[in-house]
Formats: sequence, structure tokens, C-alpha cells
Amino acid sequence: MIKAGIAGVTGYVGEELARILLQHPQADIKAITSKTYAEQNYNDIYSNFNGLFMASCQEENIAKMAKELDIIFLALPHGIASKKINKNILEKVKVIDLGADYRLCCQDTYEQWYNTEHFSPELLEEAVYGLSEIKREAVKNTRLVANPGCYTTCSILSLYPLLKEDLISKNSIIIDAKSGVSGAGRSLNLSTHYTECNESLKAYKISSHRHTPEIEQELSIAAGTDVSITFTPHLIPMNRGLLTTSYAVLNENLSYNDILEVYKKYYGKEFFVRILKEGIFPETRWVKGSNFFDLGFTIDERTGRIIIIGCIDNLVKGAAGQAVQNMNIMFGLDEKSGLSQVPLFPA
Amino acid sequence: MIKAGIAGVTGYVGEELARILLQHPQADIKAITSKTYAEQNYNDIYSNFNGLFMASCQEENIAKMAKELDIIFLALPHGIASKKINKNILEKVKVIDLGADYRLCCQDTYEQWYNTEHFSPELLEEAVYGLSEIKREAVKNTRLVANPGCYTTCSILSLYPLLKEDLISKNSIIIDAKSGVSGAGRSLNLSTHYTECNESLKAYKISSHRHTPEIEQELSIAAGTDVSITFTPHLIPMNRGLLTTSYAVLNENLSYNDILEVYKKYYGKEFFVRILKEGIFPETRWVKGSNFFDLGFTIDERTGRIIIIGCIDNLVKGAAGQAVQNMNIMFGLDEKSGLSQVPLFPA
Amino acid sequence: MIKAGIAGVTGYVGEELARILLQHPQADIKAITSKTYAEQNYNDIYSNFNGLFMASCQEENIAKMAKELDIIFLALPHGIASKKINKNILEKVKVIDLGADYRLCCQDTYEQWYNTEHFSPELLEEAVYGLSEIKREAVKNTRLVANPGCYTTCSILSLYPLLKEDLISKNSIIIDAKSGVSGAGRSLNLSTHYTECNESLKAYKISSHRHTPEIEQELSIAAGTDVSITFTPHLIPMNRGLLTTSYAVLNENLSYNDILEVYKKYYGKEFFVRILKEGIFPETRWVKGSNFFDLGFTIDERTGRIIIIGCIDNLVKGAAGQAVQNMNIMFGLDEKSGLSQVPLFPA
Amino acid sequence: MIKAGIAGVTGYVGEELARILLQHPQADIKAITSKTYAEQNYNDIYSNFNGLFMASCQEENIAKMAKELDIIFLALPHGIASKKINKNILEKVKVIDLGADYRLCCQDTYEQWYNTEHFSPELLEEAVYGLSEIKREAVKNTRLVANPGCYTTCSILSLYPLLKEDLISKNSIIIDAKSGVSGAGRSLNLSTHYTECNESLKAYKISSHRHTPEIEQELSIAAGTDVSITFTPHLIPMNRGLLTTSYAVLNENLSYNDILEVYKKYYGKEFFVRILKEGIFPETRWVKGSNFFDLGFTIDERTGRIIIIGCIDNLVKGAAGQAVQNMNIMFGLDEKSGLSQVPLFPA
Repeated sequence: MIKAGIAGVTGYVGEELARILLQHPQADIKAITSKTYAEQNYNDIYSNFNGLFMASCQEENIAKMAKELDIIFLALPHGIASKKINKNILEKVKVIDLGADYRLCCQDTYEQWYNTEHFSPELLEEAVYGLSEIKREAVKNTRLVANPGCYTTCSILSLYPLLKEDLISKNSIIIDAKSGVSGAGRSLNLSTHYTECNESLKAYKISSHRHTPEIEQELSIAAGTDVSITFTPHLIPMNRGLLTTSYAVLNENLSYNDILEVYKKYYGKEFFVRILKEGIFPETRWVKGSNFFDLGFTIDERTGRIIIIGCIDNLVKGAAGQAVQNMNIMFGLDEKSGLSQVPLFPA
Repeated sequence: MIKAGIAGVTGYVGEELARILLQHPQADIKAITSKTYAEQNYNDIYSNFNGLFMASCQEENIAKMAKELDIIFLALPHGIASKKINKNILEKVKVIDLGADYRLCCQDTYEQWYNTEHFSPELLEEAVYGLSEIKREAVKNTRLVANPGCYTTCSILSLYPLLKEDLISKNSIIIDAKSGVSGAGRSLNLSTHYTECNESLKAYKISSHRHTPEIEQELSIAAGTDVSITFTPHLIPMNRGLLTTSYAVLNENLSYNDILEVYKKYYGKEFFVRILKEGIFPETRWVKGSNFFDLGFTIDERTGRIIIIGCIDNLVKGAAGQAVQNMNIMFGLDEKSGLSQVPLFPA
Repeated sequence: MIKAGIAGVTGYVGEELARILLQHPQADIKAITSKTYAEQNYNDIYSNFNGLFMASCQEENIAKMAKELDIIFLALPHGIASKKINKNILEKVKVIDLGADYRLCCQDTYEQWYNTEHFSPELLEEAVYGLSEIKREAVKNTRLVANPGCYTTCSILSLYPLLKEDLISKNSIIIDAKSGVSGAGRSLNLSTHYTECNESLKAYKISSHRHTPEIEQELSIAAGTDVSITFTPHLIPMNRGLLTTSYAVLNENLSYNDILEVYKKYYGKEFFVRILKEGIFPETRWVKGSNFFDLGFTIDERTGRIIIIGCIDNLVKGAAGQAVQNMNIMFGLDEKSGLSQVPLFPA
Repeated sequence: MIKAGIAGVTGYVGEELARILLQHPQADIKAITSKTYAEQNYNDIYSNFNGLFMASCQEENIAKMAKELDIIFLALPHGIASKKINKNILEKVKVIDLGADYRLCCQDTYEQWYNTEHFSPELLEEAVYGLSEIKREAVKNTRLVANPGCYTTCSILSLYPLLKEDLISKNSIIIDAKSGVSGAGRSLNLSTHYTECNESLKAYKISSHRHTPEIEQELSIAAGTDVSITFTPHLIPMNRGLLTTSYAVLNENLSYNDILEVYKKYYGKEFFVRILKEGIFPETRWVKGSNFFDLGFTIDERTGRIIIIGCIDNLVKGAAGQAVQNMNIMFGLDEKSGLSQVPLFPA
């Protein structure tokens, strides 16, 4: 059994990790830490775990965890992981960071978008950007995975094959993204107070959301050249689910089937990617609680654009689920292990 | 592996059965039937099953299912099961009926509340009312389980020990019940049209809901005498979850701990019953997607009443989950088998 | 034109007062105050007022407001109003307090339930409990109205005629109440964080909610003797609306029409009370944004109980609307003035 | 007083017309018709009108209405109005059609997108496309207004000034639109069954929604040349509200203030258009129940694109409110008459 620890277990991502790992047949949760809730029973904080998980939160001690565990999941606010992790730690334990600290190759880009110092830039080269379907081989061999953001996962999976095969115009990409409120986390804020966001809809951080450089970095790698995108996130009055509507101009006159072949080439064997039938488009309800990425697309012949709809559960494929998928890859397990639940509907 | 069939697989209860059984380590779904969607791929109807379940719906044929299967789950509108099931069928296969046809001991009561003929009254005596925690021994030995209704399960589990131990006044019981909209099923109706019930709240079928006689029947058995209740269901603008607030006058001056001991006596070893700490009360979010029944209570000393809050996932412990729990009991499996998922939160 | 001021204009009750008064044909909002948002434009805080209301929030100065205004509405946390108001103030200006400070006749009861000192107990006798339909004559002649709480308004209006006419058993009353989340106000709290209360349901402050003594006080006056109730509030995942399900044992065998006559005697001429047809019960959607109290009831002949469903918009009839209704009464205006909007549906 | 009639009063648009007109100081509702609910009391269908509106629905008789009324509002499914209206009718009464029949100048385009015959193409030239802010002069002088669709109103108001002033590339326009569920109407449909759309999100009718030709028609007029857009509507789990995120490439390097000046030129004096401060973007909660169109925009300098967020209440500015605004214009009333309610929040 893999001995796993979760640092930052009381945020929604940490809690989702706990849920998934608890049901994982080849992993045991051996340590959970929380700054805010140290010494408290986990199931007093999250009563869904009542009767199922008896652990209590500890003070964070990465060094100790490194000695005793096989893998540490970090579900911490940005800027913290880069202080905690170093080569010494990585010699003892594998690390999957669900925050942003190791996602951007370039220290400057990180410090500019996140407005904070990076404390272990020497690890940036070693860290593997853990978009499992695309970086599987690198994930297999790394000690440090930078788990992608939720918007990022959905956006990149939607566009990667099209850029890799040079089918769309690099400067034409617009991603209009929509997320449920759990993406904003558990910290109190007027904008996520029930009566302030329920039954309402807004765009936010327009052209300035921190997932933008992450998406551009990976799409640029796919394209082999710099890609700039327009990215607009929206807050949707629902708990879970994330959907992206991506627009791009096709480089040539391609049919639905031409494009379908390309998606099949990249994702045809991927368990967690479900390419929907023609005319059927993703809906967040069909992926809730699961690690699936659902994909549908259409070609707007009148304008020469392709429109791609992608959808995930932001806390699963967009965070904890993909992290466990990466763990499975790192430890040579069946990639689906612990991740094949049927999405819960209606929920 | 138990060979299972689901008749009426395209309603929400049928779908929840499919979800649970698909993940059950000792059961295989060998047949699914639907009147409305015969010949259609199940995952075209419920796309959450995409990539996980490749079956297509068949025309219902109970005789054929009886020959080939070990157990049939019936998730049909009331009045249908009693036509389909007979002693001949039961000699070949075990049956769990999730509808109302075999829940009431008395044919007259059934025909009066359901306003329809009963077609196999000869089976009423044999049928076991499948409230697992209370009827475990009988369930073990029966061929026909009448799986309880959702309101019923939550209400009876809340009150059974108190009546069994003669702690409350039999004529003082009021159950104020609240259910999410999935309890109303998938059939189209103006009252469950999104814009008609979202952001609103109502009571319905006040003093006339069909779960009333079921609750009274089982509570009367517990009390050893006739019990009449006042039962008021309410429709809550959310997908899943059911909570009952039960009121009764205490027969004598009992403390919180006195009552707690009684609940522990009955439920202390029950995996699916979670008695919450004093001062903590159930919330539907903590049971979503799970087979748990959460219980909390308080004593209103000023009025001499006990107030019991019970809560379940209406589609799981209130329907499909309890049915699978009953299957586990009938086949001598671990009662938790296939039913130990962590509730999904936030969802 | 009545010159009105609102102290505490940035809570939901204050904002609702601003909305209603702004549209009132005989009142002008001359001053708005806020502790938290002093000096800020009101429509930067509540953008719905953009283009309609150009005022900015001032520091609270009740003495100054008393000199310049005809009426002050206080929408402050409990314990504040009793410090601010005194006989001197009341000689200059009429006051409607939407908080709890002057609702309870008895200082001790207040200090016990609210766990705070009362700073102007000498005003308790003068203060009129402003349940408009019941206290109209007293409201007409007072300088100080204690505006009732939301749960209280709905509960008392449901039960008052029955107690006044001695039709129900005083010790049999149970009020199972349900409120939308706006009732919890705008202050940040984990329990009203979107993802914590959306799609969930719970009871809270069972047998200990502060509206209990208020309800008992007024029902006792109606009954002419002490009435103790069991009161259980529930939090419903919706923005607005409040519904109470009240239960009581009938003193004698009365028919639906007998009871109807009684309700008609008390409410037949009340514009804001809508007695629904037999078999029709209130739903919060039909009162949203309005000052209506909708009422329906049924008799459970099997148990001898009456079940009364009452429903209001918690921010209107349950707070700001009733306050304006009281203002209309105090100033001799048409009681409906500014309060006859059609409820917004679907909303 | 203007004598008004509403044909199709039992759909959500008809109901919203009834709500607004009932509160209009210069209009009386003299006739309401419904095919489905003829002879029924309106407030039995929509109980929010209880105590406020005593009319009952009549069988539709446009000829009779034309004789007796000053204006008829048609809130009918497409394809019906074009059968009912003719020059003879228009000689007697003004007509505002809230359906699609007279919105498209070209009969062929209509018949192709709506897949039905047009029965009065001779009126297409006379009909004025009633986007009030843009077509005010024409509305003033017409007998027949084709009231715009909800998506259309929000989209055109967002983009019109930019095209009129030739600031954006005509082929670069993408409109990503999001609507609450009331936009889908009151007819039962699995996709708007509560549990099927609550807590979920989807795109639908991608590149094929019927509002597309309407938007293109009016934007082409603005641009003075053919404009083709990509239009993607999404269904948002909320009752009311519509938001569009529009993307276009700027023709030249323009600053925020340059663009602001242009919007001010067109909308600076428009009561119902609220241009938000820089950095503030529309949210549907701030317009609920009102006729406002809120507008915000930003320039994505990295990509040379402008992103415009527009937002309306789909049933008010997107339907009934704009219709009444047009009535006000047609009858020479203050354009705000009956339309200056404060948006309801939280709701």
C-alpha cells in the first residue's frame, strides 16, 4: 500500500483528495495536516467522513512526512509549497503539488502573475506539469508533479491536439470558461456568500486570471511557437463543474470527421477522455464526482471557426482526481485505480 | 457474482440502482429494462454512464429474467409490480420491489391509498418490509422484499426505538418532512419544471401523502398498538436529500443521555446509522450519494417534547442503496458491500 | 413628503427599506447611515441602485437625524438600538426599530435570550409591537414601533385568530419554520458560504431560536394566558422566502368552514393577508418581493389537528415591508402606499 | 389610459407583461387571452396576482381586441402572429409582437431559420425592429413593432456602437451568451425539468440558435455591410438573467477611454443603459426585475481584442419590459413610465 499524506486537507481540494484516497485500493492516508484545524478530528470538520475516517489533523511537518510516507499531496495556497519543498525532501518522497508554484517553467512569469517570490526556483526544471494524458511519460519518471489548475486542464485538453497538428490559427483562440463556486474555495468572501452569488452570473478577472499563463505555456509547447489566448472565466451558481467553450479559426477547410480523427488519435485510448457523439455536447452534470473530461465540438461553417466544448468536475479532473491519476502513473499502478466511480446524477 | 436485473432502469431510482450495482464487487448487472426507452443505449439516456456501462435497455420480460438471474429489482410505478410478480416467479428468483405494492400488509389499505387494484394479494404475507436495520432477520430469509419509501425510512428510523421502548406518547407524533426534487421522479410535471420550483418552497399532500400508512404500519408494530401520525411533506429546491423533523411528547422526564442510550441500544452497531454528537444535527449535504441515515435529537424541556432530526439521501438509503443493502443481507454478503462510498461534498 | 432616514442601510433589511422607500410616493429617503461603509456611494455597494439612487452612506448620528427627519428606521444588530434611542429622541422623531431591542415587553426575557444588557428599558412600555394587522390602533398612536421578526410575523399571523377564539389547545402548538438564506443576513459565515449551504438542508437553533419568546409573548396575549410553543427553524437553499408549518390540536370538532369563518373575521378585509382557496397552500414563490402573507390550512381529521401553512417574503412582510406598512399607519397614509407591487415570478 | 390587451398571457413573457402593465400608471389591461387556460382566473394560474388582478383568460379574438383596445401585445409561439395580424387589424390598433415573426426583414431568412411559412410577409417592411434605444424614431411612428429577442437585445446593445463607428473587425465577432432557465419558457421539457438542469451547465444550439440571424441583421445595418457572427448560447441554472460575453478584434490601437467615449456618445443619455465604471462588470443580480441593460468592457492588450460584458433581465429588457418601453414611445409617454422599479436583490 502506498503511504500518502495530504497537506492542506481542510480546503475543498484537500477534502476531495481525502475522499478519493480513502476509497483507493492501493493507498492509505497516513497523515493529514491543516494549519487552521490542527488537532481537530477530521470528521468534525467534514461530517461526510463520519464513520469512515477517524484521523485528526496534524500540524504540518513536511520533513517528518517525507521520512515516513511514499507520497505527499500539497493542497496549499500558492507561495507556500515553494518554501516547503527542496531537493532534500524530494530525495525521500514523491510530491504532487496541487497549487501553482511549480506549474510555470519560468520563475519570472510566476512571480509576475502571482505577485510573490518563488523560494525554490531550482526545482522548476525538474517539476513535471501533470496533465496526465499529455505528460504521462514524464510523470512516470519524476519526483515532483505540478498538478494543473482546473480551468487549465479543461482548456488544454480541448485545444492541444488541434495545435499539435497545426489545424487552428494560433492567434485566434478565445476560451470562455465557466466554473461552479467550489472553484473559489472554502475561504469566506462576500462574492461567494450564498445570497450574493446564488441566482446570479458574472465574468471575473477578465483577461487577467492566473490560469492564463499556464494555458499559454502548454499550448505554446503544443504549437511549437508562442500562443496568446483570450481567457474569460465566469462564476456559475452551482457547486461543482467546469465547462469551457473554446473558439478558434480553422487553418483550412476541415470537416467534422477530419477533426474527429485527430481527437481520436490523441484521446481514442484515454479512459478519462470521453469524445461525445456528433451533435451531443458536454454538460457538467454527467461528470460530477468523476475524473472524466468530456469533449464535444462543432464547426461553424459560416465563419470558419471550430467551437470546442470541454467539461470536467473542477475538484476531480480539475484537481484531486488528476493528482491521484498522476500518483497512479508515478507508482506504476493501473491509471484508473480508485478513479472509476460512476458520476453521481442527479446531484 | 450475483446476476442482477433492473426493471424500470430509466427512472431516477433505477438509475441509482445501476450506479450502485455497477460498482458492487459481488454483483453484475445482467439485464436492464425500460418501457419508454427499450432498445436504446443506456448511456445515451444517462450520459454519466458513458465509458462505464455499455448495456442497452430491453423490453421487460420478468419470466425470462426470473430464469436467468439471481435477483430482480423492480423500480416501477405503483400498481405494476403486483401484476408482474407471483409465486411462480418467486420460486426462480429473489425480488426486491422498490415500489409500494408490497409494503402495506393490508390489501384494503393499499387499494384505498393508492386507488388501484392489487393483483397479487396472496404475496402480501410473504413480502418482508425491507427496512434493513429493523427487519434484518426477516429479510435474510425472504424471497420478496418490499423496499420502504424514502420518507418512510427516515421517519421510522427516527422514531422506532422510542416507540419500541414506550418513551413517547403514541398520539403526539408529528413528522414534518422535507425532500429534494429528485424524490418526485423524472416524469415531466409543471410542479417540477425548473422555474416553478427553483427558489421556492411549499408543503404538499398535507395529511394525505401515501407514505403515511406505511409509517403508521411500522410504528404501530413497534409500539404494539395503533399509532396515528400527522405527516407533512415539503418540496425543497435542491436535487437530493431528505430530512425529517419529528416531534413527540415524552412519556416521562427523560434526559438527553437517557434517550441517547436507547438509540445506541438499537443503532450502536449499525454502520449506516450515524448518531451525531449532542448539539450537532443532521444536514443533507453530509449524506449525499451515501447509504447513511444521520440522526440528532434534542429535548425541549419547556414543552416536554423530543425533537428528532433524521436525514438521508432519498435515492440511496431512501431507495436504491437500501435495496442493495437488502440484497447483501439476502445473499449473506457483507452488508456494506458496494455501499461504503464517502458522501460527495460539496455537491 | 415624509422625510425618512435609514440607519444600517447596508444590511439586507436596510437595503430592502431603501428599495421600498425609494418607490414610495409619499416618502423621501433623506439620510442613510452605515458603520462599515461610511462615505461610500450606496450604489457602489448595491449596484441594483445604479442610476436610481445617488446617495452616499453617512456616519450614524441619530441626534442629527432626529432633528431633520420625520422618521428613522433602525436596521441594526440587536443591542445597538437600545443605546441610541431615548425619550429625547422620540420627542423629535418617530422611530421604527427593525431589530429585537423593543420587541419583548420584559427586560429580563430580552437580556436572557439576547445575552446583552438593555440600555433603555424605560421605553419598553411605550414601544408598540408592530404586527400591523393586529396592532394597527396602537401603531397609529405610538412614537416607537418594534417591528416584528420574520419568523414571528408568519407564525403569529398563522395562529393568532385561533388562539384569540380559543379554538386550539394552548400546549399543543408546534411551529416548524423554514427560511431562505437572506434571513441570515450579509455577514460572512461558513454556514452561509455558498458551497456549504447550497443544495443542502438543516434545522438550526432547535428550541433555542430568539424569535421564540417573541412568538410566545404575542400568542399569550391572544390566548389571554401563557402559551409555550415548540419552534424549529430550518435553513432552505434559496435566497428569499419564509414558510411556517404550524400544528395544533383543535379544542373541538371543527370543520374547515368553521375555521375559515374565523380567519375571515380577522383577515377578511386585510389587503396583505391572502387566504387561499381550500386545498391550495402557500408557496414562497407567490409572495416574492411583496408584503403579502399567504395562508392555507387543513384539518387532519384522523388526529384532530389543524395544520396551518403561512408564507411571507422574509425581507418584506418579515422586515422592511411591514416597517413601511407601519410607517403608513403612523402617518395616516393609505396602508398599501408603496407596497402594492406584484410579486416577481419566476425569480 | 391606454387600453391594452395581452395575447398569450400565460407564458412567462405574457405574465411579465401583465405584471408590468398592472403597475403602469397610464395603461389598463383590458383583455387577456390564452389558448390553454381560456375561462380560467388568471390568479389561479399565477397566484402572485392574487388580490391584485381579478381578470380571467379569454379565448383569443384579435379582431375584437383590435376594435376595443389601443394596443395588443402578442406573446405567442412563432408562426402564430403572422397569421393573426394584417393591415386591417393595424388600421384599428397598435401591435407589439414579442415573437419572432416580424423581426427578420427577409421572408426567406425567417422561413429557413424557423422552418415555417410566413403568412403576412407584406407587413415585414412596415414592422419596426423595436430595439428601443436604437430604433426610437421609427418605433414612434409605426403601428407594428417586432420586439427583439432576449439574446439579441443584449448582444446588439453591446456591439452596435462599435460597429457603427467602425472600431472592430466585422469578421471577428464571437458572442458567448448565457441565460437563466426562464428563457426556455413554461412548456414542459426534459431539459428544463428541475433535476435535469439544476446544478448543471451546458451549451446548446451551438452556431444554430434562431437569434443568430436577428443579431446579424441589426449588426449588419450598424456596420453598413454584412456581418457574420459566431453565437453560442448556454443554459445557466438560475431562474432569470442573461449575460453576453462578446469578443472582437479592435481595428486600431484604442484605449479604454476611447471606447468609453463612443459608448457614452450612444448611450450617455439612455436611462436604461448603465455603463459601469472601469474594472466593474455586469452581474445579472443587479438587473433582476428591471429594464436595465448593464454594460462593462475591457481591452485585452496582449491580443488586441475588446471584451464586452452585457447583461439584462431576459424577461424584462429582453422581452416584456422593452415591449412596454416601446409602447411608451409609440404613445408619446415618458419612456420610463411603469419601468423604474429598483431591481430586486437578493432574489
